[in-house]
Amino acid sequence: RIDGARLWSSLMEMARIGPGVAGGNNRQALTDADAEGRKLFAEWCAASGMSMGVDAMGSMFARREGRDPDALPVYVGSHLDTQPTGGKYDGVLGVLGGLEIIRTLDDMAIETRRPIVVVNWTNEEGTRFAPAMLASGVHAGQHDLDWAYAREDAEGKRFGDELERIGWKGNEEVGARRMHALFELHIEQGPILEAESKEIGVVTHGQGLWWLEIRLTGKESHTGSTPMHMRVNAGLGMARITEAVHRIAMEHQPDAVGAVGQANVWPNSRNVIPGRAVFTVDIRSPEQAKLDAMRAAVEAEAERIARELGLGIEIEPVGHFDPVTFDPECVAMVRAAAERLGHAHRDIVSGAGHDACWVAGVAPTAMVMCPCKDGLSHNEAEDITQDWATKGTDVLLHAVIEAAEV
Amino acid sequence: RIDGARLWSSLMEMARIGPGVAGGNNRQALTDADAEGRKLFAEWCAASGMSMGVDAMGSMFARREGRDPDALPVYVGSHLDTQPTGGKYDGVLGVLGGLEIIRTLDDMAIETRRPIVVVNWTNEEGTRFAPAMLASGVHAGQHDLDWAYAREDAEGKRFGDELERIGWKGNEEVGARRMHALFELHIEQGPILEAESKEIGVVTHGQGLWWLEIRLTGKESHTGSTPMHMRVNAGLGMARITEAVHRIAMEHQPDAVGAVGQANVWPNSRNVIPGRAVFTVDIRSPEQAKLDAMRAAVEAEAERIARELGLGIEIEPVGHFDPVTFDPECVAMVRAAAERLGHAHRDIVSGAGHDACWVAGVAPTAMVMCPCKDGLSHNEAEDITQDWATKGTDVLLHAVIEAAEV
Ligand SMILES: NC(=O)NCCC(=O)O
Ligand SMILES: NC(=O)NCCC(=O)O
Repeated sequence: RIDGARLWSSLMEMARIGPGVAGGNNRQALTDADAEGRKLFAEWCAASGMSMGVDAMGSMFARREGRDPDALPVYVGSHLDTQPTGGKYDGVLGVLGGLEIIRTLDDMAIETRRPIVVVNWTNEEGTRFAPAMLASGVHAGQHDLDWAYAREDAEGKRFGDELERIGWKGNEEVGARRMHALFELHIEQGPILEAESKEIGVVTHGQGLWWLEIRLTGKESHTGSTPMHMRVNAGLGMARITEAVHRIAMEHQPDAVGAVGQANVWPNSRNVIPGRAVFTVDIRSPEQAKLDAMRAAVEAEAERIARELGLGIEIEPVGHFDPVTFDPECVAMVRAAAERLGHAHRDIVSGAGHDACWVAGVAPTAMVMCPCKDGLSHNEAEDITQDWATKGTDVLLHAVIEAAEV
Repeated sequence: RIDGARLWSSLMEMARIGPGVAGGNNRQALTDADAEGRKLFAEWCAASGMSMGVDAMGSMFARREGRDPDALPVYVGSHLDTQPTGGKYDGVLGVLGGLEIIRTLDDMAIETRRPIVVVNWTNEEGTRFAPAMLASGVHAGQHDLDWAYAREDAEGKRFGDELERIGWKGNEEVGARRMHALFELHIEQGPILEAESKEIGVVTHGQGLWWLEIRLTGKESHTGSTPMHMRVNAGLGMARITEAVHRIAMEHQPDAVGAVGQANVWPNSRNVIPGRAVFTVDIRSPEQAKLDAMRAAVEAEAERIARELGLGIEIEPVGHFDPVTFDPECVAMVRAAAERLGHAHRDIVSGAGHDACWVAGVAPTAMVMCPCKDGLSHNEAEDITQDWATKGTDVLLHAVIEAAEV
C-alpha cells in the first residue's frame, strides 16, 4: 500500500506552483510556472535516487533500476501542465502517483525485475499550443517533431522556442524509447464513478475526437445604419454553428458530445457587425462511425449556415484521434489489482483524450481512473478526496508490480 | 463654395495619424494617436486665427469671431476619434468640414454676425470607453462628469486618468456653453443615399438605441467527459441570445435593427465548456414604441434562454438614447441650402447615434449627411468621393451662414 498522506502532501506542494485565481492552477505548458513544476518534480526524483532523461519534446523520464537492467521498463505517468483555469489533479495525480509508487517500493525495499520509469509528458492540455497530447503524439509517431516545434500560441510564440527558453529541450530522440507497458492514472473528469459509488474505473476504451477550427469572414459594418438585409454578420454565423454543434451532439446520443470552447469575433466592438469570427468545435465519441458522422454533419451544417449568411468559411482540423481500445492484458492487470484490493470498480470509457491514448498505438497500455467531485474538471474547483487518490494509486502500484515481474 | 481639394488634402493628412491595418484608422479616444490628431487640428485652427477652448471632458472648441461678439455662436463639428478598425471619414469629415468653412469664409473675407465655433467632441465612438457620444452626453446633461471620468477601458484604465495623461483635460466647465444652433455634417454610414443617387441627406430624425451588456454564468467543465445533460454552457447561451436578437430585429421590420457586436467567453479554451460569457446587444429604432418593445423582447428571451440552460444572467444597460427629432428650423436651413445649390437630396433618419443627437436636447440642432460607398462604415474600407465631401460641406457652409446671420 502506498502512503496516501505523503502523496497528498506532494500534490499540495505542486499545486502551489502556478496558482490559479480560484483555488486551482494555471501552469500551462512551457510557461515559467511549468519550468518551476518540472524542477520540483526533478528534485523529488533525484531524492529517490532515480536518473532523469529528457527528450527533444521536453518529456521527462525518471528511471528506477530493476533487477534486470536490460529488460524493457514499465512506464507510469501523465502530465504536469494544466489548463489556464485548471484543477490540481488533472494529470498531476498520474505523475505524482507514479512517484509515490517509487517511494513505496523504496520504503519496502522491493526490487522489481523490470526498471520502472515515471514520465511527465509535455503539453498534454493543448490550450496554449494545440493540439493536446502533443509530446506523446510525437512519441507515438502521430506528429513530426518539426511540425510540433512550429505550433504557435495566441501571441505567435513557437513551441520549439518556448521549450528552449524554459530550458527543457532535452537531447533524447523522441519516440526512441521502447516500453514493455504503460499505465496512466487519471481522474475521471466526468460524473459516472462518483454517481455509482465506484472507487476505480478500469478504462477499456478512449473516445475519439475532432477539433475543427472554423474561420468565418463577413463584412464589418455599422450596427445602427446597416439595414438588416445588407449585413454579413460573422458573429451570427458563429452563433448558429455553435447551436448546430450542440444539436448534432444531441442527435447522436448516447455516446457523443460536442461543444464550442473557443469563440472570438473581430473587431469585438459594441457598434460593429463582426466581420470575422474564429472558433473551435470539439466533437467526440467512442464509436468511430458516430465520430465520422458528427464531423460530416458539423461541416455540412457550418457550410450551409455560411452560405445562407453570405459568409466566407474555412474549416481546419486542428486536433484528432481515433477511438482507442486499450491493451486487454494491461486492462486485466488493472481490473485484477482493483479486485485484489477490494475496491469497488467498473469498466469505463475515457471521455477525455490522454497521453495513454497515443501510447496505446505503440505499446501495451492501460489506464486507471479515480472519481472526481461532481465530475468537474478543466475548472479550478476540480476536487478529489485523499481516499480516492490513495485507492487509485494503490491499484496503479499493484498493476505496475505485476507488469514489472513478467 | 468651399475648396474641395483643400478639404480632401486635410482629410488625408489627418488619416496619416493612427493608421489602421487595412487603409483606415485606429485613432481611438484618449490614445496617443488621438492626442496627435488633436494637436494637428489645433495647429490648423491657430493658423486660421481661431481661439481654442477646451472643456473638462477634453472637447475642443475653436472660435472665429463674428461682427457681434456677444451673439450666441453657431456651432459646427463632429469627432476626430475612430473605431479600432475605423474609416477616414466617420466624424473627421464633420470636424474638418467645419474647419474648411472657416477657411472659405476667411478666403472670401466674409464676416458673419454670430461667431462660429468648430467643435471636436471627445470619445464619440465609445469603443474604448462605453458609452458612445460620451462628452456630448455630459455637455447635454445626460451623464455626470464624475461618472464619465470613471468609465474604464478593457484594461481597467479610467477615462479621467487617460484624458489627463494625453494632456487634454481642459478647465472649461462642461455644458456651460450656450449655442444658437449646432450643425453636424456626417457620412451616412448606410446605403440609402448612394442607392438613390442622392448627394445630400437632410436628417430629420435619429434612431433611438439600447446597448445591453449581458453576462452569463455557467460551469466550466471538460468538453470530453461531461455528459451533454450535465453541461451548463455559457457559450451556448450567448449563441442562442445572439440568434434571438437577430430574430427579434427581423420581427420588428422595417425601422428596427439589432446585433451582438462584442462577444467573449471564458476560459476560451478548446476543451473547456465556457463557464462565463460577456457580450453586448445593440438594438435601435427611430420609433420609441418599437425600441421599447425590442428591449423588452430581448430581455425576456435572454432570461428564458438562461433559465432553460441553467445559467446565471445579469443584464446591464450600458448605453441608451431615445429617438431624436431635429429642430425643424435648422432642418429647413439644411434643406434650403441643398435646394439652392441644386444638390439631389432627400430627408433621412440617422441610423447611427451622433453628438448632434445629444445636443438636440439642449440647443436647436440639425445634421447634413453625405453618401458613403456601399453604405460601409466602422470598417477600414469606408470610402467617400471628394465630390460627395465637397457637396456636403457646401450645404453645411450655406446652412451655417444663414444661421449665423439670424
Ligand atoms: N485529459 C485531458 O483533459 N486531456 C486534454 C485533451 C482532451 O481535451 O481530451
Ligand atoms: N456615428 C457613430 O458611429 N456613432 C457611434 C455611436 C453609434 O453606434 O451609433
